[in-house]
Amino acid sequence: MSPGVTPVITLLTDYGLEDGFVAACHGVIAGIAPEARIIDVGHLVPAGDVRRGAAILAQTIPYLPRGVHIAVVDPSVGSSTRRAVAIEAGGRVFVGPDNGVLSWAVHAVGGATGAYELTNEDVWLKPVSRTFHGRDIFCPVAAHVVAGRKVAGLGTPIPPRELVTLPEPTSRLRDGACEGEVLSVDRHGNVQLSITAADLGFLGVRDGDTLAVWLGRRQLAVPYRDTFAAVPPGDLVAFTDSAGLVAVAVNAGDAAQRLGLPPGAHVRLSPART
Amino acid sequence: MSPGVTPVITLLTDYGLEDGFVAACHGVIAGIAPEARIIDVGHLVPAGDVRRGAAILAQTIPYLPRGVHIAVVDPSVGSSTRRAVAIEAGGRVFVGPDNGVLSWAVHAVGGATGAYELTNEDVWLKPVSRTFHGRDIFCPVAAHVVAGRKVAGLGTPIPPRELVTLPEPTSRLRDGACEGEVLSVDRHGNVQLSITAADLGFLGVRDGDTLAVWLGRRQLAVPYRDTFAAVPPGDLVAFTDSAGLVAVAVNAGDAAQRLGLPPGAHVRLSPART
Amino acid sequence: MSPGVTPVITLLTDYGLEDGFVAACHGVIAGIAPEARIIDVGHLVPAGDVRRGAAILAQTIPYLPRGVHIAVVDPSVGSSTRRAVAIEAGGRVFVGPDNGVLSWAVHAVGGATGAYELTNEDVWLKPVSRTFHGRDIFCPVAAHVVAGRKVAGLGTPIPPRELVTLPEPTSRLRDGACEGEVLSVDRHGNVQLSITAADLGFLGVRDGDTLAVWLGRRQLAVPYRDTFAAVPPGDLVAFTDSAGLVAVAVNAGDAAQRLGLPPGAHVRLSPART
Repeated sequence: MSPGVTPVITLLTDYGLEDGFVAACHGVIAGIAPEARIIDVGHLVPAGDVRRGAAILAQTIPYLPRGVHIAVVDPSVGSSTRRAVAIEAGGRVFVGPDNGVLSWAVHAVGGATGAYELTNEDVWLKPVSRTFHGRDIFCPVAAHVVAGRKVAGLGTPIPPRELVTLPEPTSRLRDGACEGEVLSVDRHGNVQLSITAADLGFLGVRDGDTLAVWLGRRQLAVPYRDTFAAVPPGDLVAFTDSAGLVAVAVNAGDAAQRLGLPPGAHVRLSPART
Repeated sequence: MSPGVTPVITLLTDYGLEDGFVAACHGVIAGIAPEARIIDVGHLVPAGDVRRGAAILAQTIPYLPRGVHIAVVDPSVGSSTRRAVAIEAGGRVFVGPDNGVLSWAVHAVGGATGAYELTNEDVWLKPVSRTFHGRDIFCPVAAHVVAGRKVAGLGTPIPPRELVTLPEPTSRLRDGACEGEVLSVDRHGNVQLSITAADLGFLGVRDGDTLAVWLGRRQLAVPYRDTFAAVPPGDLVAFTDSAGLVAVAVNAGDAAQRLGLPPGAHVRLSPART
Repeated sequence: MSPGVTPVITLLTDYGLEDGFVAACHGVIAGIAPEARIIDVGHLVPAGDVRRGAAILAQTIPYLPRGVHIAVVDPSVGSSTRRAVAIEAGGRVFVGPDNGVLSWAVHAVGGATGAYELTNEDVWLKPVSRTFHGRDIFCPVAAHVVAGRKVAGLGTPIPPRELVTLPEPTSRLRDGACEGEVLSVDRHGNVQLSITAADLGFLGVRDGDTLAVWLGRRQLAVPYRDTFAAVPPGDLVAFTDSAGLVAVAVNAGDAAQRLGLPPGAHVRLSPART
């Protein structure tokens, strides 16, 4: 890391906040690299939901200072088939299990320029538990990087193309419509789709138009506006959200609940016939 | 901010903790003002509940160091009618939407001495999303203030009397009783009223007396003691809470649930007839 | 605290995250000791569950830097019978109510070498509320310690043997089996027992063996492996967890829910007959 700059470590896990797991991670980092600033990206990823963890990190990474970015959603922790890795990308270092949880964020910052399987046990906490590699491997590794260790000294180089990557959320234009899926549902019940504002542009949809939102055979007419507050409370609305993706919301209400749309559900959008 | 003092930014939102929204805010601040210390006032304000956000900030502000205080409970984000503001009050700067969420805290520290509509787009994140002004406007503005920008340079002066203020929670003395409302319910189920210890003093109620608590036509006799632990587990008790307000609790139990008292419910207190 | 080292204060409470209570604590500390780094051990201890608080702190303390460790799970706050204390142990200082919440962590770092009833009101926030001693007593005391005050100057020495200690979770070997209790259930539904890997060693159980898990009269055959990922998704498994205790889990599932095992439930383990 550059001299004179406060080094940053960010931490995303599915550990939850009920126990002391996150604090143990913070404590381990503070012990090795007391000068590091820790930013919690979040700890409420649904247990073992690698895809959700990948989406959160990828959508947040553009707003995080360059640093070392840990993500631990790791349902195969302790198994011999899952590698631990550090990945160099976009002037950042990503640390976590090689199960794809890092892959979308790595892609978002330009792709991996280097990758290492974490094999240098000298920097790990001993004894290494079989189920808490966040505390015993990933946090110590990240802290040693901000404390000045070369990433290359922490493991064995592997070709970036061998890293596990998750399939990107799909969207495709077909027959004058765009098909996609529910990528996430936020706390307000806003339904984020894998369809971008650019996709709608290809269909000729503009702010103020009405969208046909197809959920299976059910069709809803939904105004496409610049924000949810543009429609009366209780009304459905589609808009481009803060990640550049199309979202369906109910102003002052919960769209996911009203429409019965969980993450992964299939959605099709087209211009409404007038 | 004074030289030599760690600048403080505090952050209250209804963004929840499931997504990376709060981390994006922290990241934006850390990028502009890496020396700032961020204190999270909370992120679990019920979605869009401006009144609840205002109450939390007002009750916490006396214990927060002077700094820049952001509150984003903003159901009208992105609409043309809602202004973004920075308010100077009590040696502090408050930043957020002009919908009243800041008003009780501003009042609590002595009232606004200056106010600005945020119009200087130079310090905003580009492109500005329509739905995430916390990340794109309020956090950058706050960070630039702690980094040394004059508040006056961030917007257009407006008369403080034109700021939106929420009606204060009501309490009134009438016919030998005090009427008020449920202001909040905490995690323990303690019911905080808009009635102060001073109100009870006017009624002649003292520690050790018994209160008549009226919920509609239902009347309960509740001892007024100095703390909930003064009654046996499972018993109702009224006491002056840590914000100086009268609260009704069940020792080792949940008063809100037992009494069916949500925020906003009407409550009347009087000395119990002996 | 040592010069040149960033002082650390850790904070564990049952205050929840819905209100501004935790922020008030952070604010009070930042006002007195702005150089202190605060690590939140957690704030979601079930309300008033002293035993759960004690377990979280004891399992996390080995990973926290030496500092001042506050724990406030305090159902008797404000009563005259509950003392406030500061305890010296293992080069650390523990601060909280004298109700046992600190006792397992103090034991984990080697036992108390000094203890003080907090009686020096000069360092408390005034006026002291009756129900929020975290804000008004424990945090100011901790902050003054990291700011250089001697612990001995904050109260009256008391013999460490007079401190309240919680009974340790029980486990005992009997008739070729080990009896214990459910100590905690984490977010994944993993059931942590008060039985150690060493206990199983005494019974001759080794990795790869099958355990008989007795829940009352019900008996389950559960493989004892080195991690939950060693069995197929949906299968029960026992393993030594990151705290060195035996845990029962369902790979990619919720063992507590499947087995109906809340904290405190009685469990007996023995080698399965083959």
